[in-house]
Amino acid sequence: MTQRIGQQNKGDIKVAVDLIIFTVSDDSLKVILIQMKKIPFTGKWAFPGGLIGDDESIDNAAKRELKEKTGVADVYLEQLYTFGDVERDPYGRVVSVSYFALIPSENINLKTIDKYFDIGWFDITNLPELAYDHKKIAAYALKRLQWKVEYANVVYSLLPRYFSLTEMQKVYEVILGRKLDRRNFHRKVKSLGIIKPANKKQIGKHRPAQLYEFSSRKPRIIAVL
Amino acid sequence: MTQRIGQQNKGDIKVAVDLIIFTVSDDSLKVILIQMKKIPFTGKWAFPGGLIGDDESIDNAAKRELKEKTGVADVYLEQLYTFGDVERDPYGRVVSVSYFALIPSENINLKTIDKYFDIGWFDITNLPELAYDHKKIAAYALKRLQWKVEYANVVYSLLPRYFSLTEMQKVYEVILGRKLDRRNFHRKVKSLGIIKPANKKQIGKHRPAQLYEFSSRKPRIIAVL
Repeated sequence: MTQRIGQQNKGDIKVAVDLIIFTVSDDSLKVILIQMKKIPFTGKWAFPGGLIGDDESIDNAAKRELKEKTGVADVYLEQLYTFGDVERDPYGRVVSVSYFALIPSENINLKTIDKYFDIGWFDITNLPELAYDHKKIAAYALKRLQWKVEYANVVYSLLPRYFSLTEMQKVYEVILGRKLDRRNFHRKVKSLGIIKPANKKQIGKHRPAQLYEFSSRKPRIIAVL
Repeated sequence: MTQRIGQQNKGDIKVAVDLIIFTVSDDSLKVILIQMKKIPFTGKWAFPGGLIGDDESIDNAAKRELKEKTGVADVYLEQLYTFGDVERDPYGRVVSVSYFALIPSENINLKTIDKYFDIGWFDITNLPELAYDHKKIAAYALKRLQWKVEYANVVYSLLPRYFSLTEMQKVYEVILGRKLDRRNFHRKVKSLGIIKPANKKQIGKHRPAQLYEFSSRKPRIIAVL
């Protein structure tokens, strides 16, 4: 075992939550990172998170952390994975229960605290050097999100209430990291029954586009069988 | 806070793994349960599991537990959810990282240890009274499995290498808890590209059925877009 900083008794495990908060803006998929002060990670970036409270459930700790950092609630929040490698934290045995959130890009005021140097949005495909095992967590979160949008309606949490199919396609393309055929996308997405036409058209355009909304703004699986 | 049995310091959390091990046999979806000795759960049933070792990752603890109880490895094993309510264990703060496994029903010899009264297979729709929050874990595991088979090829881990479409349909019906239209099922499952005809026919039948095998016996998402 490598040498550890600080003291911890055998069998004494700490549990933290880490949040991968995604948004789509400026045609890129972005996540929130905080810049750390504490050694040995001084100056490196990490996903926001922290230890769970003694009288706090893990799910509530994740909601609290999301609210503290972004001011938002009522967005899509899902437990991603619990990372529990023995040596993942130099301060002792810390298990990280990670969550990912999907939030719309408007009206988010990121708040940092004195514990960190800074907080900001970063393109998931171009991250700075990350602390702990957060590079692995980032890769897993992206993969899960890419899978998820293929079989669930969760992009509702990234889009405004009303949106055009062009805007919806752009969100998919940014997440999947590849161009989609326009006609094929329109046909498929209409056949899945997850969206419906709204009684609205896009304003300020030469040819106003039909706007759509999600049939349900709650998580739903798109069944294939 | 309710009174707790035993001693635990503030902030001292224990981490356990719990395994929901599914199989399909005799036309029902079954899970493994162990019968507990320790108070206050004496005589009640629970999913097999235990605390993670000091020098053991959580994922390795799950694999060890599966191997110990069933003798199998190389089956589908997925982290399900981490349950972390404050009062879930009367002995103190214990976080449960649950996993679910899908195993074929043949050649499994369940092994219990002296710590428990008994071990056995139970129909997921007809479980005895469960210890801890395991009733909630059981409900979540079933829901996740029902979702999962709709968008991934994971039933490969419940079926033998070669199977007929009738056998495959039966596994889906048992998991989903409803009858499927035969013609529709055959058409859809063939169109998904997850199985291929094997160069074999079922033996011992008046009209031998075509046998199939999975194109890949690794987890794969069935994309809809």
